[in-house]
Amino acid sequence: MNPRPTSYSRTVKTSLVLPPDTNHYDNIFGGKILAYIDEVAAIAAMRHSQRTVVTASFDSVDFLCPVKRGQAVTVEAFVTWTGRSSMELFARASSEDLLTGEKQLTATSFITMVAVDEDGRPVPVPPVTPETDFEKELHQTAPGRQKFRNQRKQNFLMY
Amino acid sequence: MNPRPTSYSRTVKTSLVLPPDTNHYDNIFGGKILAYIDEVAAIAAMRHSQRTVVTASFDSVDFLCPVKRGQAVTVEAFVTWTGRSSMELFARASSEDLLTGEKQLTATSFITMVAVDEDGRPVPVPPVTPETDFEKELHQTAPGRQKFRNQRKQNFLMY
Amino acid sequence: MNPRPTSYSRTVKTSLVLPPDTNHYDNIFGGKILAYIDEVAAIAAMRHSQRTVVTASFDSVDFLCPVKRGQAVTVEAFVTWTGRSSMELFARASSEDLLTGEKQLTATSFITMVAVDEDGRPVPVPPVTPETDFEKELHQTAPGRQKFRNQRKQNFLMY
Amino acid sequence: MNPRPTSYSRTVKTSLVLPPDTNHYDNIFGGKILAYIDEVAAIAAMRHSQRTVVTASFDSVDFLCPVKRGQAVTVEAFVTWTGRSSMELFARASSEDLLTGEKQLTATSFITMVAVDEDGRPVPVPPVTPETDFEKELHQTAPGRQKFRNQRKQNFLMY
Amino acid sequence: MNPRPTSYSRTVKTSLVLPPDTNHYDNIFGGKILAYIDEVAAIAAMRHSQRTVVTASFDSVDFLCPVKRGQAVTVEAFVTWTGRSSMELFARASSEDLLTGEKQLTATSFITMVAVDEDGRPVPVPPVTPETDFEKELHQTAPGRQKFRNQRKQNFLMY
Amino acid sequence: MNPRPTSYSRTVKTSLVLPPDTNHYDNIFGGKILAYIDEVAAIAAMRHSQRTVVTASFDSVDFLCPVKRGQAVTVEAFVTWTGRSSMELFARASSEDLLTGEKQLTATSFITMVAVDEDGRPVPVPPVTPETDFEKELHQTAPGRQKFRNQRKQNFLMY
Repeated sequence: MNPRPTSYSRTVKTSLVLPPDTNHYDNIFGGKILAYIDEVAAIAAMRHSQRTVVTASFDSVDFLCPVKRGQAVTVEAFVTWTGRSSMELFARASSEDLLTGEKQLTATSFITMVAVDEDGRPVPVPPVTPETDFEKELHQTAPGRQKFRNQRKQNFLMY
Repeated sequence: MNPRPTSYSRTVKTSLVLPPDTNHYDNIFGGKILAYIDEVAAIAAMRHSQRTVVTASFDSVDFLCPVKRGQAVTVEAFVTWTGRSSMELFARASSEDLLTGEKQLTATSFITMVAVDEDGRPVPVPPVTPETDFEKELHQTAPGRQKFRNQRKQNFLMY
Repeated sequence: MNPRPTSYSRTVKTSLVLPPDTNHYDNIFGGKILAYIDEVAAIAAMRHSQRTVVTASFDSVDFLCPVKRGQAVTVEAFVTWTGRSSMELFARASSEDLLTGEKQLTATSFITMVAVDEDGRPVPVPPVTPETDFEKELHQTAPGRQKFRNQRKQNFLMY
Repeated sequence: MNPRPTSYSRTVKTSLVLPPDTNHYDNIFGGKILAYIDEVAAIAAMRHSQRTVVTASFDSVDFLCPVKRGQAVTVEAFVTWTGRSSMELFARASSEDLLTGEKQLTATSFITMVAVDEDGRPVPVPPVTPETDFEKELHQTAPGRQKFRNQRKQNFLMY
Repeated sequence: MNPRPTSYSRTVKTSLVLPPDTNHYDNIFGGKILAYIDEVAAIAAMRHSQRTVVTASFDSVDFLCPVKRGQAVTVEAFVTWTGRSSMELFARASSEDLLTGEKQLTATSFITMVAVDEDGRPVPVPPVTPETDFEKELHQTAPGRQKFRNQRKQNFLMY
Repeated sequence: MNPRPTSYSRTVKTSLVLPPDTNHYDNIFGGKILAYIDEVAAIAAMRHSQRTVVTASFDSVDFLCPVKRGQAVTVEAFVTWTGRSSMELFARASSEDLLTGEKQLTATSFITMVAVDEDGRPVPVPPVTPETDFEKELHQTAPGRQKFRNQRKQNFLMY
């Protein structure tokens, strides 16, 4: 399969933060941001692989700044690295105060998605070609994160 | 107020078409696309004006191609022209078959939004500076569309 | 096919305006009203044609009055005119302040729906018989609006 | 307070049955119908009393026929009888197969709503004047149902 | 079929009360509680019968205390008694002020669910074995409630 | 502040997997499970601290088994360890095939929540007393995970 550039899978979703997404003090729920990240990463992974995908894992996510009702939240994701049928994606969520223009980084995460056929069996995916310096760095450091994930799975599965 | 370039307000939202958005034959509802266009246009208008906005009007919308469950739909909008407190926005919705990569234009529309203060009174907005040829054309033809809208309002208000 | 009277397709939907439907100043989103209009018009078109329908176009919509959280919004639609497989519908949205009983017209629109079979191909629909003076007027003026729509499609498709 | 006729509060809501409302065999959830009945009855009670209302009780509800995905469901409600601050409402849900025009009664229920002020304290409501024979019958039999509800509350509160 | 103990079907669902679930004074809609009860009772009935189920009836429900935005609401249900293919379930909804720990009973109800096959025809269900004193009492009194429901159906079907 | 036992905060939420929660092959979205985990962990953290909480971080999550439309998903969470104003929670999501009774572990995660006052400033929380062997183990190993999280934050914040 021919490799696809990172830009091919890059996906953007900007949304208004509405009352059902927020708690009693008008802060967005962390879980809502994770749901947006999962949706955007899934679209990016399907764009790259032209396959249906399932979410295999989320790496840890730190929520750096609260996002308030009435602000906009933008989630971006792209494929950073591929295995045979798995893809690592990088996602970034940021908030924007629409009345001041101020933007803040909310959270970043690495997500692993697996391309599957109609019976849920893994299928091969094309490789990815990073383009910018940042994408190249994420591509080169991906095998280290993958190794860490495999160790993690062995250590924590008891729970 | 200093003018803002068109790129400042440009907003993109990509979403998966899910079962609740579709009818019995798995086509997205036209009303769901219009709701996405309204949300994306409102974010773009707030980005441009740094004010809360209300939707004043939608120009006519033709739905050119069905969008199916499981596809992605991308809505983009930006400010094309401004009056004292009103902004005209251009929005474009396109579908993407994630399993083939094929993209199709779904609908376009011009939306008019008005910047308001806390009491709902119109407030001034900065002018917009178009950058690309397409944006310049939309900017130059905007007064003609606005004139047409004013006539329309007088003719059809009886209903 | 035997004609059906306008009253056969008339559909009414009254809803409470809830927090997820409103912006930061408690006004309903224009896109939410358009989504209601599309749903009600689709039910009316299916009642008339006994077929699944797709939305072909929305004519322009002016939002005349804000609708606030806690108010009720009522959307009505009926078939005004039919082509071979297309139907023109008139829809009307109004707000109601439940604590004072005051009602206001929010928006009106003409929507075109097309009856389709399981493969999405257009199928014939029965004619409509208008009953009231208002329905007769809408019926008689429909071919003019249809002609205007066809011109519009040719002019604006470049965008 | 001057009495209001039954027709003043009558409220109608027609909706398409969409996938999120249905179970694995495409039947609407009973709970979705009850939520529609509660919303429509609340609007009717607010129309009658021009007050915010809270739901005090639902009488028993039998689900007579399944409603399927793709059908329309229509819920109607109106005030049948009033106490000092409580109102009894009658609600009726029916399904409609849009491809055949066949309609079936789904469920009926009596709901009791109480008009309250901003602190949640009961406030007086105007009396209701029934108009049709059916409304008169419901009005006359209401005190009997209210007596039965009071007994019920005493008997079942142990659970 | 071997009987199953009551504990086998017991199902619990705790949820935060969010803005879309509440009215203008931040009280949860009664209909939202009924929708939760229906979902939890359906899961409990499917656990017991290992079949898809449809809701046959709700007995009357009194709403005893308001539940406010920001509180938690907990719904529990279990099978109390079975006929050939019908199951009676008891459900209990309670609110919890998370900032004080105070809990209040909101509503209780008996729901009747019927196990069905793919064509919607009733299928047999296993009997239930009550364990606690409360479950035994509900089990013993169930035939009386069932008889009352059959009378009710005959009396009220005119509406 | 007096310590609270682990059982005080334990929260359970069982839900049916409905069409809007699933992708084209009827598997639940990973993001939906994360949103459930966040909601259940937030309720548990509020129960423990009697304070509003914000999500500070999610540790990595591996999705072990797909959850299908029509199955039930159960999410449980409780407080395992506390700092001055932060709480570590353990959450566990499992699926249940309601037609066979088969249950499978879907995912586990550790979530960190922070108790805040009305201005979003951290406030102290009571300590937690683990009861079962499993809870004691999670309690003892929590400081190690917290140290790892602090390192992680320093290493990955560049992205």
